[in-house]
Amino acid sequence: MQFQSTDDLRSDGPLRYAQSVDFDQPLSLELGGSLPHVRCAYETWGTLNKDASNAILVCHAISGDSHAARHDDDDAPGWWDALIGPGKPIDTDRFFVVCPNVLGGCRGTTGPGDLDPATKRPYGADFPRITIGDMVAVQRRLADHLGINRWKAVVGGSLGGHQVLTWVTRYPDSADTCIAIATSPRLTSQALGFDVVGRNAIQSDPSFADGQYYDRPSRPDTGLAIARMLGHITYLSSQAMDAKFDPDRHDPRQIASDFEQRFSVGSYLAHQGQKFVTRFDANSYITLTMAMDLFDLGDTRLKLMERFDDSDCNYLIVSFSSDWLFTPQQSRDIVNALTALDHEVTYAEITTDAGHDAFLIESDIDQYGPLVRAKLGDIDTSRPPLKPADEAILELIPDDASVLDLGCGSGRLLSALATRGRRRLMGVEVAQAKILAAAARGLDVIDYDLNKGLPAFIDNQFDFVVLNSTLQAVENVESLFGEMMRVGRHAVLSFPNFAFRDLRDHYVRQGRSPKSQGEFNHDWFNTPNRRFPSIADVLEFCQRRGVTVNDAVYLDTTRGTKVSDDDDPNLNADVAVILLSAV
Amino acid sequence: MQFQSTDDLRSDGPLRYAQSVDFDQPLSLELGGSLPHVRCAYETWGTLNKDASNAILVCHAISGDSHAARHDDDDAPGWWDALIGPGKPIDTDRFFVVCPNVLGGCRGTTGPGDLDPATKRPYGADFPRITIGDMVAVQRRLADHLGINRWKAVVGGSLGGHQVLTWVTRYPDSADTCIAIATSPRLTSQALGFDVVGRNAIQSDPSFADGQYYDRPSRPDTGLAIARMLGHITYLSSQAMDAKFDPDRHDPRQIASDFEQRFSVGSYLAHQGQKFVTRFDANSYITLTMAMDLFDLGDTRLKLMERFDDSDCNYLIVSFSSDWLFTPQQSRDIVNALTALDHEVTYAEITTDAGHDAFLIESDIDQYGPLVRAKLGDIDTSRPPLKPADEAILELIPDDASVLDLGCGSGRLLSALATRGRRRLMGVEVAQAKILAAAARGLDVIDYDLNKGLPAFIDNQFDFVVLNSTLQAVENVESLFGEMMRVGRHAVLSFPNFAFRDLRDHYVRQGRSPKSQGEFNHDWFNTPNRRFPSIADVLEFCQRRGVTVNDAVYLDTTRGTKVSDDDDPNLNADVAVILLSAV
Repeated sequence: MQFQSTDDLRSDGPLRYAQSVDFDQPLSLELGGSLPHVRCAYETWGTLNKDASNAILVCHAISGDSHAARHDDDDAPGWWDALIGPGKPIDTDRFFVVCPNVLGGCRGTTGPGDLDPATKRPYGADFPRITIGDMVAVQRRLADHLGINRWKAVVGGSLGGHQVLTWVTRYPDSADTCIAIATSPRLTSQALGFDVVGRNAIQSDPSFADGQYYDRPSRPDTGLAIARMLGHITYLSSQAMDAKFDPDRHDPRQIASDFEQRFSVGSYLAHQGQKFVTRFDANSYITLTMAMDLFDLGDTRLKLMERFDDSDCNYLIVSFSSDWLFTPQQSRDIVNALTALDHEVTYAEITTDAGHDAFLIESDIDQYGPLVRAKLGDIDTSRPPLKPADEAILELIPDDASVLDLGCGSGRLLSALATRGRRRLMGVEVAQAKILAAAARGLDVIDYDLNKGLPAFIDNQFDFVVLNSTLQAVENVESLFGEMMRVGRHAVLSFPNFAFRDLRDHYVRQGRSPKSQGEFNHDWFNTPNRRFPSIADVLEFCQRRGVTVNDAVYLDTTRGTKVSDDDDPNLNADVAVILLSAV
Repeated sequence: MQFQSTDDLRSDGPLRYAQSVDFDQPLSLELGGSLPHVRCAYETWGTLNKDASNAILVCHAISGDSHAARHDDDDAPGWWDALIGPGKPIDTDRFFVVCPNVLGGCRGTTGPGDLDPATKRPYGADFPRITIGDMVAVQRRLADHLGINRWKAVVGGSLGGHQVLTWVTRYPDSADTCIAIATSPRLTSQALGFDVVGRNAIQSDPSFADGQYYDRPSRPDTGLAIARMLGHITYLSSQAMDAKFDPDRHDPRQIASDFEQRFSVGSYLAHQGQKFVTRFDANSYITLTMAMDLFDLGDTRLKLMERFDDSDCNYLIVSFSSDWLFTPQQSRDIVNALTALDHEVTYAEITTDAGHDAFLIESDIDQYGPLVRAKLGDIDTSRPPLKPADEAILELIPDDASVLDLGCGSGRLLSALATRGRRRLMGVEVAQAKILAAAARGLDVIDYDLNKGLPAFIDNQFDFVVLNSTLQAVENVESLFGEMMRVGRHAVLSFPNFAFRDLRDHYVRQGRSPKSQGEFNHDWFNTPNRRFPSIADVLEFCQRRGVTVNDAVYLDTTRGTKVSDDDDPNLNADVAVILLSAV
């Protein structure tokens, strides 16, 4: 059986390229107390430009360190090698990348294993309780030291995501872009529970000795290994574990361990647990998990909105479908607060079986890497050709209007609107490939199921809300319609007219389910359309709901002509574009 | 904060009504070795009838015991009180109910805490490795002792489900009915991983002393408590934990414990862990989890079919939507094997936030209890009125035919077919309320999404497959159609004809989306129909796929008449019923 895991991406040995800086000014801690002296270990890649405007901060997860990427061909691989390097999404030919080890860790930055100047022995369990905010405070000192006033971007996954969210909420002018991957506003109670169990395992290990084990013959390796085994289960999805362990469930690999190795999953966990204790310190594990558990941006949208209100960066939020430790819903909670604040945000939920670990896995980085690349300014400038309905919509929307495009596809309409100026534009889309394509064009697009309404958006947030060639596929027409009129001062609706003459002819003369060219060219048994409204139907629908039709463009796309109001559009137009406003 | 959990359903004190029986014949164990003597503790409710035909075996889960229900008003509550008792789904006025403590446990039946006659000291870790099969072997001895040849039913949840599945697969003539709740053919690798971590915590506790702790001053309470804390997390859903702990996350209850109590979830887990060690034995925990982990009916449908092939009971399988320890998919794997074997089976996935614990929770028992009641013969004899299409379908199906009804609703058509005789009838349905209603009528119905095809069924399994008034709401018409013709020797299709004259009139004269009475009486924006085929469309569809239309009944339900072939049914019928067979 394979023992490989994302742990194998970590550098166990000495960090050849790590530098460090000592800060002798005491660091006041958020929960009280202070550290008289702090050392910060870090690595850098690329070159800082003259105005220090190309610096990117990379923040690591709980068991990571400063070695995010290899520095040369001979170097050991970094834990985010697929994302960071020359020509990669975080392009070290363009950017100066900085990755510090976190405060409280055990890979160079001050942590519980370091000497307490007051007692001349290791802090151990006397290391003060720290927060994510304290980690960021050290990183701010490092930025000052490096001459960086504002980051081009702050980027992190998991606990690293907590750090970047803290950066931009505490220090609103600290970064242009915040990229938060596989993270959350705070842990679920379930994740908290796992951390509690892990800490209990460490602290009840007799070798833990109340945290002062450094000068003793044994360390709390058993407790730490058990905590790590448990952590490992939570980093993987159940599907991924079945795929990895089911084929040889009863054929464990024999390894040197006192832990149970009855099943292949058992020998894997024993191996990971044993390996971890050789490179990680139990007090650091307790310190860092507790900091993560205390991280709490709020449990309601209102609280999250308060936190994010002042930030002036744009955001990329990424989650993974099978991540049950930091769930997609938690990322969506962040996104919903950001959209309600009208902040620029792109959000994608990447479909994967890899669980929380996905943020470290190359095949998943291949999926979200292009989003990172685009957010950092390297965008796809190709422009998809417009359709007749698009042209009609563009006519109805003033140049300076803000627009929300529902079902924006790969950004056809938004790309055209974007050429007109820098007004607020946003798309929502549910198909992953289209989200990725739209985001690669530098458009703000969020992964969103229209059938859930528009709770992410606030009243009158946009000048225009567009529903372009999507009405006929929507399940909950009535509630979505109400939501559009709530969120937009105006709405633009384009839809195929199912009372178009060719369709009536087909239906009545032949007694067949309507089928024609263009939008209608589907058989009854495989059409994606589930609604078959005519122009008359939609107009009546609007009227009954007190919605005013301000303007309308009717098209016969089979002839490439407009159809005037006098020429019975309900019979002669195959596409309608109508402009609505609540009375 | 509330500390209540399903643990509070357990009886901590002495089991006042427990009896026991000693078997002096050695018990040969499945994995080798034997136990020279076995005692079995059990409780009973109700009265065994003269021919011993009313006995029901109830099997408990990992930390349960024989006290499944209270015996009188003064008695302590049992763990399945809501299911078992006078007038309850397992009605002790009708049935003689037996619940034994499992082999390897610590509540009366022989386990690791008992004296090894060979050494005169407790077995401890020398207790042999046992299997679910060994537990069942003891229960068979108990059945012999009680004079029970064949159980009316064997019923169990979780590990109890593993026991009842073992009963009916090992001893095919042992029961009329098998009711397996929140269980699986084997554990997921994830669940296995949690068990491994739990056992490692116990076995690495210094007080475990290789399992011989009984005469020592301390027991491995720390390790056992940690295993239990971890178990508790897996019994709850993440949603349930958030609901329980989020409101006062930072306000833990203060309890006497060395375990961390920083968060409310922490103090809850510490409390549950501490409480558990007062009533459970660590060696039993290791013994029982290992037996569960070794339980393996197979990881493919073919292996499962081999296991279930000989069983001659009928089945009720129940899963819970938020159960991630014993997932709904695992129950479905069992169901898919049973359906392919043409065994009688009802399956429901109960929608709940309660996770694995749901099988013990009263509000969830209120949902699945009626299914248990019906499977035990207390059925709803009301008969819903037939619709015109139903009558036409009944005309087309011979009395002795086996029938699979796709989208069977609350069993309208199947109830009518059932009155004709005892041929094989089965329904599939996706709406929970309808599944419960159909099952309460004593019909075999399985919870099933037609959009996933019919992989549960084998080629030519039924004489007739019926799709009654459902075609217009199906997403994947083509693949479902292929599946129907694969699974049935014939298919019967009833559907609304969207080329009916009233609809054509509405559409053509008024230019409105078709709307009429009956099946068509929906607005374009809220119709559940997503396909709008005419009779001509469906006939052409069949012809192109080489499917022969053997017979057809066309109805004008607006007039209550049949429409003959000569009278242009595509114009004049609003409902069609056609009988198909693959050529």
